[in-house]
Formats: sequence, C-alpha cells, structure tokens
Amino acid sequence: VQLKRSLDLSLYLVTDRKLAGPRNLLEVVQKAIKGGVTVVQLREKDLSAREFYELGIRTKELLPPDVPLLIDDRLDLALAIGTDGLHLGQRDLPVEIARKLLGPPAIIGLSVENLSQLQAAKQLPVDYLAISPVFSTPTKTDTGPAWGLDGLRTARELTCLPLVAIGGIDENNAASVIQAGADGVAVVSAICAAPDPEEAARRLKNIILEARKKL
Amino acid sequence: VQLKRSLDLSLYLVTDRKLAGPRNLLEVVQKAIKGGVTVVQLREKDLSAREFYELGIRTKELLPPDVPLLIDDRLDLALAIGTDGLHLGQRDLPVEIARKLLGPPAIIGLSVENLSQLQAAKQLPVDYLAISPVFSTPTKTDTGPAWGLDGLRTARELTCLPLVAIGGIDENNAASVIQAGADGVAVVSAICAAPDPEEAARRLKNIILEARKKL
Repeated sequence: VQLKRSLDLSLYLVTDRKLAGPRNLLEVVQKAIKGGVTVVQLREKDLSAREFYELGIRTKELLPPDVPLLIDDRLDLALAIGTDGLHLGQRDLPVEIARKLLGPPAIIGLSVENLSQLQAAKQLPVDYLAISPVFSTPTKTDTGPAWGLDGLRTARELTCLPLVAIGGIDENNAASVIQAGADGVAVVSAICAAPDPEEAARRLKNIILEARKKL
Repeated sequence: VQLKRSLDLSLYLVTDRKLAGPRNLLEVVQKAIKGGVTVVQLREKDLSAREFYELGIRTKELLPPDVPLLIDDRLDLALAIGTDGLHLGQRDLPVEIARKLLGPPAIIGLSVENLSQLQAAKQLPVDYLAISPVFSTPTKTDTGPAWGLDGLRTARELTCLPLVAIGGIDENNAASVIQAGADGVAVVSAICAAPDPEEAARRLKNIILEARKKL
C-alpha cells in the first residue's frame, strides 16, 4: 500500500449519536466540518445495519470531497455506502482480508493498543494507525491501558505510518499530542458533546496547526 | 435472480453458540450435518467480527459441498469467509444493495414478519424467504407476532419463492409446517440444545421427508 499523501489526519471526528444528545448527528457533523474537521469516522455500535446504512448515505451527502468518510468495523457498510474507507480495531476483520475486499485505493486504519500490536501493524496493508487510547477516556472502555505521551513518542519512533491519537483529547492536551509526534488528533466528545461543535472544531484545529508550527 | 434449483431448504440449521452449551459449536454443526441438515446459517450476534470470521472459516471447512453456509446480517463476513450467501432481516442491509455487492450466484434470504413485508419481498432479488416466526419462540424476541399455520398457508398462496419456516419448530410441529406449505424447516434450539444433535437432526429430517410424501 502506497502512502496516501492526500490523507489529512489533522482533526479526525469519530461520531457518537448518544453524545450528540437531542441534536441531530448530521447537524453536528456539518458544523464540525465547517469548523475544520478533516476526516469523519462513523462509529455507531448500537444501530442496526439498515439504520447505519441510512445514516451513512446521508452523512456522505453532506461531506465535501476533501473530507473522507470512514466506517468503523463494518466493511459491508463501507461497501454499501460507498465510503472512502474503513477503520478497524484488533477485534474486527483482519486487515489483509479487508484490504483484499476493498482494494488498494481504500483508506484502511487500524487501532493499536500496545507496542506489540504496533510492531505487528508494520507488516499490514494499512494507511494509518490510531494510537488508542492516548489518554484514558470514558467514551470507550474496551481498550487497554493508555499510551500516554511517552508511549506516543515511542510509537512515533518505531513506525513511519501516519499516526492519529485518540482517547481523552481536548483543547488542553491536543498541542502536547501533536508535539509528541501524532499527525492528527481524533476526538469524540470534544466535538460531539460540545455546545457549539463548529466552534469546538475550529479551536481544536487552530491548536493543532499552531502546535505543528513549533515542531 | 433465477430460482436456485439446487437450494435444498429442507432442514435449515441456525446456530447459537450459547444454546450449544459447553459443547463446541463446530461439534454440534458436524453432528447436525451427519443427521441430515441441508443448510447452515451462522447467527452469532455477540461475537466480535474477528471471532465470527474465525468461527466461519472453521465451519466452512467442515461443511460438505452440498450444504451451503449462510451468514446472518454481516455481508462483510460472508465476503471475508467466502460463504455461499447471506441471510438478511428487515433491519439489516437492503436486499438490493446486498445483491449488488454479492453478485447473482450468492444465496440471499430474507426474513419476513408480516404480509406487507412478504408482498414487498416479491420485488426483491432474494432466493428464499423465512417466515418468521411461524410459532412464538424464546430464542429470538425482536420479531413481530407469530404467523401461525394459517399465516404460513396464506404466505404460500401469495408467493412462489421458496419458504423456510422458523420459530418454535420441533419434532411435534415440523410436519404441520411442511403440510402448510413450507419448503423447509429452520431450527435453532431443536438441534443446538439437543442432547444428541445428530439424532435430533435425523428425526426432524425424517419427519420432514415423511410429511412431504403426504402433500
């Protein structure tokens, strides 16, 4: 798999309908994009395939062409919706199988929770890795211990793959994550649960761009 | 979609690891096949995609070529495992999308829970319908009211598609289901929870074949 140079992981939104509260998730996504989100991953574990499919179709319609839409776990939904790619966890389909089924142009990301998974991922046809969780988080509880900033720095030294950090990232620590070597920051609640998702995305994006200048 | 004349729905096993108890599910499937099961559907809602994939690969290895393996809901797993087809519910991916992604040779089945779903299914590229549930059942609780034998007879009059009846079927009522017009009988607990799955399958198969002679 060739490095997808156009893949901009800077500000990576992972959705959570429940955190969006009474607001429509599509409204949150639309505002987040206005605020500068560069990737959208639909992760909605509690939806039926039909509901997820319909949500995916509507989400795809509102994304500008430079913001890729990724689906968490379900390759069938990625195919059915016609998204740009798929994000896999360690308990999802094997990356090699997903690559075979989706083809070379698809973006495939993989969450790694520890160094041995990171080392194993070097041999896999993935386009980026998610360092998960970089900080501990209440949003996702089925993961291993947090990498921390030191862990992220180690990961950065061990792989040339693009890295997005996820887990407990907000305006207070986003800069430190970029300084530790992440190519981008993935957030769930920092945007989905924000009173103003557009403004939250804009502030995060500025923090990321500013932190990058100081590298 | 052309009628798949080789599709034998006579005795259709739907798996449930939990009902298999301490026994290995693969052992139950193997015995059920010896007893005369003609279709195996893997339906395991609580497994991760990776676990389901591994279970599917191992199940596929032990099936004889004339017993098709179907996957419930997850088209991605059907593709990844390389199964013969997919069984969809009303809340799963739309049938047309699944057909487009799987191609004409794949077996695609659809559960219908009422007459309007049955009528709608006539326009869909499906290979068979599951009349679900024909009797009320504790195995699956997210379905509508039971069709009953009268409902099954009505369904039989309204469509030429092959019909498999599912829900609460056991040795006591299997013959009545065939007499009411089902092409086959789908069971979960009648085989998965049986002390001797091979013997349970054999008895059911005989009941089905005998009932068919009297049609």
